Amino acid sequence: MATQANSVPHPTLIQVDPFIPADQQKGIHNRWHPEIPPFATVKPGEVFKIECVDWTGAQIGNNDNSDDVKNVDLTKIHNLSGPIAVEGAEPGDCLVVDILDVTPFEKMPWGYTGIFELNNGGGLFAREFDSKAAKAIWDFHGIYATSRHIPGVRFAGVSHPGLIGTAPSAELLATWNKREGELIAAHPNAVPPVAFPPEPIGAYVGQDIAPDVMKRIADQGARTVPGREHGGNCDIKNLSRGSRCYFPVFVKGANFSVGDLHFSQGDGEMSFCGAIEMAGIITFSTSVIKGGIEKFALKQPIFLPSPVDPLYSSKVIFEGISVDYHGDGKQYNMDASVAYKQAALNAIEYLKKVGYTREQAYLLLSAAPVESHVGALVDSPNACVTMAIPTGIFTHDILPKPEGLTKHDFGQCAIRSDGVV
Amino acid sequence: MATQANSVPHPTLIQVDPFIPADQQKGIHNRWHPEIPPFATVKPGEVFKIECVDWTGAQIGNNDNSDDVKNVDLTKIHNLSGPIAVEGAEPGDCLVVDILDVTPFEKMPWGYTGIFELNNGGGLFAREFDSKAAKAIWDFHGIYATSRHIPGVRFAGVSHPGLIGTAPSAELLATWNKREGELIAAHPNAVPPVAFPPEPIGAYVGQDIAPDVMKRIADQGARTVPGREHGGNCDIKNLSRGSRCYFPVFVKGANFSVGDLHFSQGDGEMSFCGAIEMAGIITFSTSVIKGGIEKFALKQPIFLPSPVDPLYSSKVIFEGISVDYHGDGKQYNMDASVAYKQAALNAIEYLKKVGYTREQAYLLLSAAPVESHVGALVDSPNACVTMAIPTGIFTHDILPKPEGLTKHDFGQCAIRSDGVV
Amino acid sequence: MATQANSVPHPTLIQVDPFIPADQQKGIHNRWHPEIPPFATVKPGEVFKIECVDWTGAQIGNNDNSDDVKNVDLTKIHNLSGPIAVEGAEPGDCLVVDILDVTPFEKMPWGYTGIFELNNGGGLFAREFDSKAAKAIWDFHGIYATSRHIPGVRFAGVSHPGLIGTAPSAELLATWNKREGELIAAHPNAVPPVAFPPEPIGAYVGQDIAPDVMKRIADQGARTVPGREHGGNCDIKNLSRGSRCYFPVFVKGANFSVGDLHFSQGDGEMSFCGAIEMAGIITFSTSVIKGGIEKFALKQPIFLPSPVDPLYSSKVIFEGISVDYHGDGKQYNMDASVAYKQAALNAIEYLKKVGYTREQAYLLLSAAPVESHVGALVDSPNACVTMAIPTGIFTHDILPKPEGLTKHDFGQCAIRSDGVV
Amino acid sequence: MATQANSVPHPTLIQVDPFIPADQQKGIHNRWHPEIPPFATVKPGEVFKIECVDWTGAQIGNNDNSDDVKNVDLTKIHNLSGPIAVEGAEPGDCLVVDILDVTPFEKMPWGYTGIFELNNGGGLFAREFDSKAAKAIWDFHGIYATSRHIPGVRFAGVSHPGLIGTAPSAELLATWNKREGELIAAHPNAVPPVAFPPEPIGAYVGQDIAPDVMKRIADQGARTVPGREHGGNCDIKNLSRGSRCYFPVFVKGANFSVGDLHFSQGDGEMSFCGAIEMAGIITFSTSVIKGGIEKFALKQPIFLPSPVDPLYSSKVIFEGISVDYHGDGKQYNMDASVAYKQAALNAIEYLKKVGYTREQAYLLLSAAPVESHVGALVDSPNACVTMAIPTGIFTHDILPKPEGLTKHDFGQCAIRSDGVV
Repeated sequence: MATQANSVPHPTLIQVDPFIPADQQKGIHNRWHPEIPPFATVKPGEVFKIECVDWTGAQIGNNDNSDDVKNVDLTKIHNLSGPIAVEGAEPGDCLVVDILDVTPFEKMPWGYTGIFELNNGGGLFAREFDSKAAKAIWDFHGIYATSRHIPGVRFAGVSHPGLIGTAPSAELLATWNKREGELIAAHPNAVPPVAFPPEPIGAYVGQDIAPDVMKRIADQGARTVPGREHGGNCDIKNLSRGSRCYFPVFVKGANFSVGDLHFSQGDGEMSFCGAIEMAGIITFSTSVIKGGIEKFALKQPIFLPSPVDPLYSSKVIFEGISVDYHGDGKQYNMDASVAYKQAALNAIEYLKKVGYTREQAYLLLSAAPVESHVGALVDSPNACVTMAIPTGIFTHDILPKPEGLTKHDFGQCAIRSDGVV
Repeated sequence: MATQANSVPHPTLIQVDPFIPADQQKGIHNRWHPEIPPFATVKPGEVFKIECVDWTGAQIGNNDNSDDVKNVDLTKIHNLSGPIAVEGAEPGDCLVVDILDVTPFEKMPWGYTGIFELNNGGGLFAREFDSKAAKAIWDFHGIYATSRHIPGVRFAGVSHPGLIGTAPSAELLATWNKREGELIAAHPNAVPPVAFPPEPIGAYVGQDIAPDVMKRIADQGARTVPGREHGGNCDIKNLSRGSRCYFPVFVKGANFSVGDLHFSQGDGEMSFCGAIEMAGIITFSTSVIKGGIEKFALKQPIFLPSPVDPLYSSKVIFEGISVDYHGDGKQYNMDASVAYKQAALNAIEYLKKVGYTREQAYLLLSAAPVESHVGALVDSPNACVTMAIPTGIFTHDILPKPEGLTKHDFGQCAIRSDGVV
Repeated sequence: MATQANSVPHPTLIQVDPFIPADQQKGIHNRWHPEIPPFATVKPGEVFKIECVDWTGAQIGNNDNSDDVKNVDLTKIHNLSGPIAVEGAEPGDCLVVDILDVTPFEKMPWGYTGIFELNNGGGLFAREFDSKAAKAIWDFHGIYATSRHIPGVRFAGVSHPGLIGTAPSAELLATWNKREGELIAAHPNAVPPVAFPPEPIGAYVGQDIAPDVMKRIADQGARTVPGREHGGNCDIKNLSRGSRCYFPVFVKGANFSVGDLHFSQGDGEMSFCGAIEMAGIITFSTSVIKGGIEKFALKQPIFLPSPVDPLYSSKVIFEGISVDYHGDGKQYNMDASVAYKQAALNAIEYLKKVGYTREQAYLLLSAAPVESHVGALVDSPNACVTMAIPTGIFTHDILPKPEGLTKHDFGQCAIRSDGVV
Repeated sequence: MATQANSVPHPTLIQVDPFIPADQQKGIHNRWHPEIPPFATVKPGEVFKIECVDWTGAQIGNNDNSDDVKNVDLTKIHNLSGPIAVEGAEPGDCLVVDILDVTPFEKMPWGYTGIFELNNGGGLFAREFDSKAAKAIWDFHGIYATSRHIPGVRFAGVSHPGLIGTAPSAELLATWNKREGELIAAHPNAVPPVAFPPEPIGAYVGQDIAPDVMKRIADQGARTVPGREHGGNCDIKNLSRGSRCYFPVFVKGANFSVGDLHFSQGDGEMSFCGAIEMAGIITFSTSVIKGGIEKFALKQPIFLPSPVDPLYSSKVIFEGISVDYHGDGKQYNMDASVAYKQAALNAIEYLKKVGYTREQAYLLLSAAPVESHVGALVDSPNACVTMAIPTGIFTHDILPKPEGLTKHDFGQCAIRSDGVV
């Protein structure tokens, strides 16, 4: 018969508390550096679990104003659980990582999406909107999320780690710091900044470690904001539960880390804290392909998508080109980022016709399973990008009709306690 | 019983011959201008057909070298069938266009994908590859395409018009010419050029028209290369048969035109002549939504996708970030176009491991139903873009395996008769 | 350049006129018999087209009453185009048939769905409804169908041949006639009949043929109504354009035939003439796998589905069990046919709440891309079957709502001129 | 910040231990009867969890022989957690149940599929195969299952409750017992039995209850094997996490119960214990639609499918007709159950060519996300049913190839310790 003896749960290799600041917990680090020692080691084929705090380390609360978003401490972000070493992995190999499941903590069935202040984090439209802090709290009901701050929507999560990557070698780290340093040097006063140099303040590794090593990590460690050749903060929504990822290995053991779990995200994650951020548990197994970097010409990870990503066949699709027709009308030269922004702004204006505020629309498009495709990148001077909103995530009808769109009163999302938006 | 009398075919409003140069045919124009008179007029609700030559107007042949691509005359491109006026449409309205079907001519069951020369047309990697003319001829077998120049693949077409749009008003046209002229002025010697100013040489309208009007059209008419607020050459692969599109109307009758039919295309259409270009027939019906620009906040068309776009659930997905790690390693600032290019180059290198030449891979990724998503645009400084290759389009296995990839000999695509690639 | 010389259309091997009775045309037969000689022969790999009349051979008209359905001559049905011999195919081989495209004739852009009289053809609910003739004419608009007789719906066709099969060997034919004869003998007076014995009246082969051979074909030839081991009238909606089918070969050349083209059909095709019946053109290519019957354990065809079958992700799904709770309440023993009927009746009753008449609902569920799954066949005594109606085929909302369903006035389908339903 | 105080987990209303026999636990019953009192009561809109033992109540172990299956006690099966009353629900209403998630217990990451003995449970092919007990243990790795007893496959679960239903009224219960009693009377000596009459032995309700009420429940309570008008053991695989179900309400409070959780199942669940049976946790929310039975013409539940059911687009599809050509060749009259069996036997023979034993193939087709459609039910005398095996669930290639199928050695599933199969 079924017994406890013949029922062996998968081990949890890193345990965290989602309600305790991340820098007070073991197994959490927030910089990329080859000298961060592995916190745990696994054998290829083993199934195991890793717990993660949310990306801010419990700084954001389940409440109805956005003051916590306004004041978030961004030196303590992108808390990563790890590193995990895989036996047998060596530089030049390919580390295969199966993302077997991604779930919130049972004791914390909620997450959040935030618009950050122009001067503290920003976001895609930080300047255009002169962004003030705002947020939506999402309640998790099994596979679905709903928000009291964005009524009228309910969607299935395409749950994934926003951030997952292998440790860089010393050489790769040096390359990162050099190229990003040069970009910063070229844009010294940008707001928000164009990139983030190593920053000793707020650096931690979640382990007891020799002070000189810790100092090197703090002084040189790459910040976690951008995705890079090792993976990192790519925020690819389809790197979801059920997907298989092939990472290049740069150090012995591969030493991969994971964090920034998302219950859901739209392509682009436009509001910066745009996914439904959550604390939770990720289930993995791994294997190693010897010499895989050469075998697959790996310069950056490749992956196979999951068969259980949500399927919504009916969509309203918006187009955008590389002309800032929502702003000063400037013609850009084949710039897909500008085109994405126009498509997004077209979608926001449409959702405003349905009754959502600009802030609600911005949050919703960031968090829902919105799809953005590169249409064409060869029709000079206009790149073309599309953004598709699934109609099935709404509990009301958003299809274009001869009589126009029905405007509802959906209130407003959580805003600052001083009422400024 | 069924009789000819009770079986009324849908009328064909513009008839063309795909084997005759476009400038010798009626109903074909190649500039955007408000004064081009409608060639035909339809009532809302009517189903009708429009025939189109291929975008070059029969310049490319079904043969095994690329000399025709090398010498293509780009002043005579983007041949558009139209304009079609819709009764009742007025500026401010929304023109609903149902793209009911898109098929090749029965007498011309083939199309082509081309890599253009750096100095004559270019393409996404024109400079990186110092592009020489190359091409693949595709044979159409019902819903499928195969190519003797790219063995080992067979895929269902996501057939669509690369180019469809309403006529601009005089004001809109002036805006286009002004902003694109400023871009050209800022990059006077770019190769390929950053944009294309009005060009009287090669302009035609496919109708008898007063010389002074023709002169204005030729002198002022916007070139057809980029997509713009009215639609135009957006090259969105999912604007496919079965989709419904909502265009802003800028002139009385809407006066929409269509051309550049594609049997298939990948997101990005990277090699410029990257779709499977074909001559063929498109079936439409239309309706008008009064005041639709205001009702839907239309700055550019929106559309509903087709239920019959090809579905390939298994994919290999490549990532790219805004660092030119395939080139000089330069760090760009949140540039999705650069990120797309890295994802594409990762895919090309992978396909080379499978046995395709760089030219074959470039053509294949341009033409097959490849999907490119914007992953994230908020993780400074690195935009992240993905490119997904469906595995089901190959007749061999391209999945990453522990033993590596099996390299086949797939020969080479059609190249110049002087053998230069 | 593109020329007629380098553009070779696929040949049409059988040409028919959809407006002429089938028995007056060449290349059409309506019995299965090994001695019907091939009408055309193809080489493996060749792409070719076959034209088909509609299954009744032009008996049904595009008009607004159902008298033609009432009086249809069922001895002249299932007109098959063929046989087509494939070079190299021998008994024991597997014939691979690619169904590359299925389209209506351009000159006949319409089809029909019929409810047949209890005493002339029947249908799944012939007895329950005491069926009187009714029909819906469907207009084809590119990939879509709509009907003036069933307002409020529009759907993409999953176009396929209702009937396709290889010629039986003499032994196989004898097996069919024996087993079906025994069934008939066991139910001598059934209305509608349980099966159809060979019937010389109305038999034709569309070729000049020796009288003694013709007599054997007429006397022994299997009727076309049921699907059998060779394929035949399986009415599988997913054997659609883009699918690949593997047939067992029973005679030299395989000698396959095709007919009964459907623009669309729901799983079950419940009203008998339940698909959208059309005349049209089918595009094929073939290959032969030597010894394929043994290699694949083929007792009946297998197939690979098309990537372009319509995708409607939102559905309302009905359940049924093997209890006739819509009738006399009888408990059946694990009978999936009864369960299917209950699911269908549940769906019909639901659609009546939305405003469709019973006849419209019956026709619609027969013709639209409705999916019926076998839920479970092991929970004695109740088989469970589901029927899924895609919501995206309606232009109005049919989802269950707290306030109930909105009832529209959709009139009635085409009925008999005497008004009897 | 995030705190335990602002993070309220969803309550678990019924807690069970999957390692303790079901009849020793609270909140578990195994008969349908209107007098079983609700074990818990919920308000509409509340999200809550229910724990379930596996359908046998821990009788099957995680080991490598099938003796436990051989000796299973079928009087103690279909352990249901419940009933759950919903405030406000009354006879005539519709109970809306959102199945928000279905997961195994973390401490029991495995399940099983069994072939039951001909004389103890049976299954679809119990007689044809003279079934001996066999089983496969499945290990759960996040969303995937694999089995050491069926190597070479790995698939995503379409997790669902095999059994969910509202309590019958006294009248409905009487109807069930009458009609099933009549069937039993008509087939008195069937092996396996055609149906199961009320059986006091083994009946339990998981609550303290007055002896006279318990006696009525035990004497009259309907057995749980078949699905019926209230839902029940329908074993519909798409009633999965993310689906929404509309049940008719027959008693005050609706009093619904749930059990028989499946990690995965194929359409038909052919081996009887054919799903991947598991113990686990199901998350619900509910609402009530007043008068819903009338509003939706509910004779049996309807449901909306989940957006996250696994998507495998590539399939090999088998056909079957209502002729027992795998057995004695008998011609049946439009019997979809016979047609399903032929399709299944065709699939089993195919999988044997790939290297699986008959038992492995039988178990695999029962448990994997296999799809079975009713092709057509109107082509007398042959019903046609299809069975589709997704190719993406295999780690090897099962597509038909010119060279035939590659036969592997996959060993055998778990069989009886006496070695009899």
